[in-house]
Amino acid sequence: MLRTQFEEDLNKLHDKFYLMGKEVSKAINNSVKAFIDHDKSLAKQVIDRDDSINQKEQDLEKKSFEMIALQQPVTTDLRIIVTIMKASSDLERMGDHAVSIAKSTIRVKGNKRVLEIEQEISEMADEVTKMVDEVLIAYINTDEEKAIEIATSDRKINEYFKSIYRHSIRAMKENAETVVVGADYLQVAGYLERIGDYVTNVCEWIVYIKTGKISELEMKNVTDD
Amino acid sequence: MLRTQFEEDLNKLHDKFYLMGKEVSKAINNSVKAFIDHDKSLAKQVIDRDDSINQKEQDLEKKSFEMIALQQPVTTDLRIIVTIMKASSDLERMGDHAVSIAKSTIRVKGNKRVLEIEQEISEMADEVTKMVDEVLIAYINTDEEKAIEIATSDRKINEYFKSIYRHSIRAMKENAETVVVGADYLQVAGYLERIGDYVTNVCEWIVYIKTGKISELEMKNVTDD
Repeated sequence: MLRTQFEEDLNKLHDKFYLMGKEVSKAINNSVKAFIDHDKSLAKQVIDRDDSINQKEQDLEKKSFEMIALQQPVTTDLRIIVTIMKASSDLERMGDHAVSIAKSTIRVKGNKRVLEIEQEISEMADEVTKMVDEVLIAYINTDEEKAIEIATSDRKINEYFKSIYRHSIRAMKENAETVVVGADYLQVAGYLERIGDYVTNVCEWIVYIKTGKISELEMKNVTDD
Repeated sequence: MLRTQFEEDLNKLHDKFYLMGKEVSKAINNSVKAFIDHDKSLAKQVIDRDDSINQKEQDLEKKSFEMIALQQPVTTDLRIIVTIMKASSDLERMGDHAVSIAKSTIRVKGNKRVLEIEQEISEMADEVTKMVDEVLIAYINTDEEKAIEIATSDRKINEYFKSIYRHSIRAMKENAETVVVGADYLQVAGYLERIGDYVTNVCEWIVYIKTGKISELEMKNVTDD
């Protein structure tokens, strides 16, 4: 009976986590779209909607806390709840980075652009959004294998970053008029790279639920680049 | 009796948290010193020692988890433990950013430098390290007022970032030879700014322990800049 109550509450928590994640994924997508299209109204929308993401995190936090206090879960059940608290912080920070990207959009005004770098940023954003969407599914299913696979694909994100870095530096060296926009490219690519790192964190939490061990999926990536 | 055991375990946890924080503070300090002095061996030391920080986080995680599972704390006691788990993730990420700064050091090789910007970065790092040290003390004492004060001082960090941004852009525009180093200045200043944000997170956890409410100290800062 208590077990059933726990499972029911857990399902609700998973639904909330998934919906929050979907909002974050959309925010990332829209922020980069706004940046590339110089769409300030879309950028403003991303910034405004971040409140809703933060609200959802606080709600998850509160519900998780109540579940621990009232149902006093142990071992795997406790691990699942703790993990939701941790992973929802990661989602919330991905949302913050989308806001930072949106703010870059509002800053850019009529500077000389480098379209091929913007194309790369757009592709990088597609990859990152795909990772976010995939990790939400892997999370709901506690799919450890998929989590490890997603974490591995973070290398691709790091490659994008390196390439955008090289191209931006070259553009800025060759033409001083691209310095402002080049610095923004580097920042936006940096935010996307970090979102990839947060996805890797969530992958680690998935592994943690299964094994009770904090894995080093991220550390491998960090020492890699 | 159970209460005494809890308090004893909690003190141990606080000691561990404090020691981990001190290591992180030192890593930040050393990483910026290495960057400014082009000291690759110090940079390598920061990178190598990050393992020890990560180990400490895992240890805190494990101990916190055990305390929840075995002692089943509720209300404030539970909140304190959950908060340690969250705040130790923040510390660990500050350490990751120190590693990123250290890696910039290893990348830089004989590029043209801009000493006045390096001076600003050095001052910014001093402020950030001060914030880290202060938040550790505020944490141990659950000093909510001090936490709010520290979070407010994050504005100063954001001002440093803006100033370093302006100066780096100007240098890169005026002299193409400073583009590589200018991009690094922006990155390092960006890492320091984010460390400031993590400190603000920890400040929020301190308020959370006291009030049970997740505050918006960080959000205010985010929408500010």
